[in-house]
Amino acid sequence: MLIDSLLKKDKRAAARLISQIENGTADADTLKTLHEKSNNVHIVGITGPPGTGKSTLVAALTKEYRKAGKNVGILAIDPTSPFSGGAILGDRIRMTELTMDEGVFIRSFATRGYSGGLCAAVLGAVKVLDVYGMDVVFIETVGAGQDEVDIYKIAHTNVVVISPGSGDDIQILKAGILEIADIFVVNKADHEGAGRVAIEIESGLETKKDWKSPVLKTVALKDEGINEVLKAIEQHYDYLKSADELALRDRRRTEFEITELLNAELRKRLELKHGSEYSKLIDEVIAKKRDPHSTAREMLRRLAG
Amino acid sequence: MLIDSLLKKDKRAAARLISQIENGTADADTLKTLHEKSNNVHIVGITGPPGTGKSTLVAALTKEYRKAGKNVGILAIDPTSPFSGGAILGDRIRMTELTMDEGVFIRSFATRGYSGGLCAAVLGAVKVLDVYGMDVVFIETVGAGQDEVDIYKIAHTNVVVISPGSGDDIQILKAGILEIADIFVVNKADHEGAGRVAIEIESGLETKKDWKSPVLKTVALKDEGINEVLKAIEQHYDYLKSADELALRDRRRTEFEITELLNAELRKRLELKHGSEYSKLIDEVIAKKRDPHSTAREMLRRLAG
Repeated sequence: MLIDSLLKKDKRAAARLISQIENGTADADTLKTLHEKSNNVHIVGITGPPGTGKSTLVAALTKEYRKAGKNVGILAIDPTSPFSGGAILGDRIRMTELTMDEGVFIRSFATRGYSGGLCAAVLGAVKVLDVYGMDVVFIETVGAGQDEVDIYKIAHTNVVVISPGSGDDIQILKAGILEIADIFVVNKADHEGAGRVAIEIESGLETKKDWKSPVLKTVALKDEGINEVLKAIEQHYDYLKSADELALRDRRRTEFEITELLNAELRKRLELKHGSEYSKLIDEVIAKKRDPHSTAREMLRRLAG
Repeated sequence: MLIDSLLKKDKRAAARLISQIENGTADADTLKTLHEKSNNVHIVGITGPPGTGKSTLVAALTKEYRKAGKNVGILAIDPTSPFSGGAILGDRIRMTELTMDEGVFIRSFATRGYSGGLCAAVLGAVKVLDVYGMDVVFIETVGAGQDEVDIYKIAHTNVVVISPGSGDDIQILKAGILEIADIFVVNKADHEGAGRVAIEIESGLETKKDWKSPVLKTVALKDEGINEVLKAIEQHYDYLKSADELALRDRRRTEFEITELLNAELRKRLELKHGSEYSKLIDEVIAKKRDPHSTAREMLRRLAG
């Protein structure tokens, strides 16, 4: 069984299990075991518009975590990420170094075409990496589409990455990302306008409970400021634990997971039934013999049976 | 009853009914009657990035339809639309002229905060305007968020509006809008680069069945090329009717409506039950006494009962 190999820290088994989860072919017992055995990984969301250097930051952070003897998983949902193969050569070489490391696991996800839902697949992958023995999992996302926005519900710690002059700063503040950010990183801090961006963010911040989201400057390409980000991520994790916030976020993630699975199950059943008995119901709605509201309730009743 | 007033062509009743549908307070009988009585309106989607002049085009088209004695409904889902109050003064004055006309009905929708789903609310509004006696309903949308993208499933005829120099042309071609467009409009055709944009689109087009999507140039602000767009919209409607495509699109819309209502019903039931019996299930998942997959199926069973 793949799950046994995974428990013996087989990296290929991890990769194959994640593929099974993506494709919806993982069996119920495996999923059950994954859930039972997973509970220790620190889930860190890295969100921000394309071009702000999220992947470079993740790569730099990963090297820093490795120096401290920690194992790191990277899940890239950003289609423009070099982890997803969507970047310039120099970046890719840097990423390749990481893939050679046994203590690092990298996986990229397409943003479309998951009948089971992207978030459900990512949640499954996090568990695989948890059981595999990772200490931290980074989830890199642009936070633009609906699925990508929801990723924040999965993470314990949400890092929002902005860069000066990207023209995206104001857009981001609008999009409500301020509220989800536990840590801000102004990357490319050697570029003009970095100070202004940092001030803009700080002026818009409200203290959430006992945690004040820090605004940190980095030059990820030169490994500048990376250790400070690592420290902030760890401090936030400590804060979550001490303030019982960790349990709240685990609960949020679990509720989200169940809702996603519930919707996926419903979609699956709907597709299976399509063209058969539902075709007749839809015909009747079109012919005005039924109305869509009561038909939707009737279909829900039949699908759940 | 509001529905009786609507059948007597009371414009205020139409507005109030749409509000009830938005808020989820419309009663079952009213929704049933709306469905039974609606079947005649031509639904036209107007999609394109902000700044391409979609609203100006809709306003110009509306005036043209009015000249031909047709009644027109306008549903604006674009938050940057002047119909939604998000525009410069000159535009708003132009829109105000339309609102004074008894044969025109304008309504804007927020893009967030519909527990019942934005698309379901828009589908309901279309039926209200159908029963009210409109000949055509324009649905203006930016086609960016997931909900807005799905709007194309509602329309019989999808018009995609682009303007030169918006820098959005290539983005759009990427986003798969090519496939949904029945008619392309290059607005602001008096701006530099309009010819190039038109050629780019035409070179990327494939003939879908027997309909070749025309690429038309307009200067909506000066009412130039508007009648040609109106003719293309009418021709497309005739094509749909003659090729039995109209029935296929009505079916697509009905299937979409039922799926949206089904999901909305599930969400509603989930919210109602939240904090009570499901809280215990979620506790058990967190405590590893249950796994999320089987719990999702269990919840689906209970919710549908």
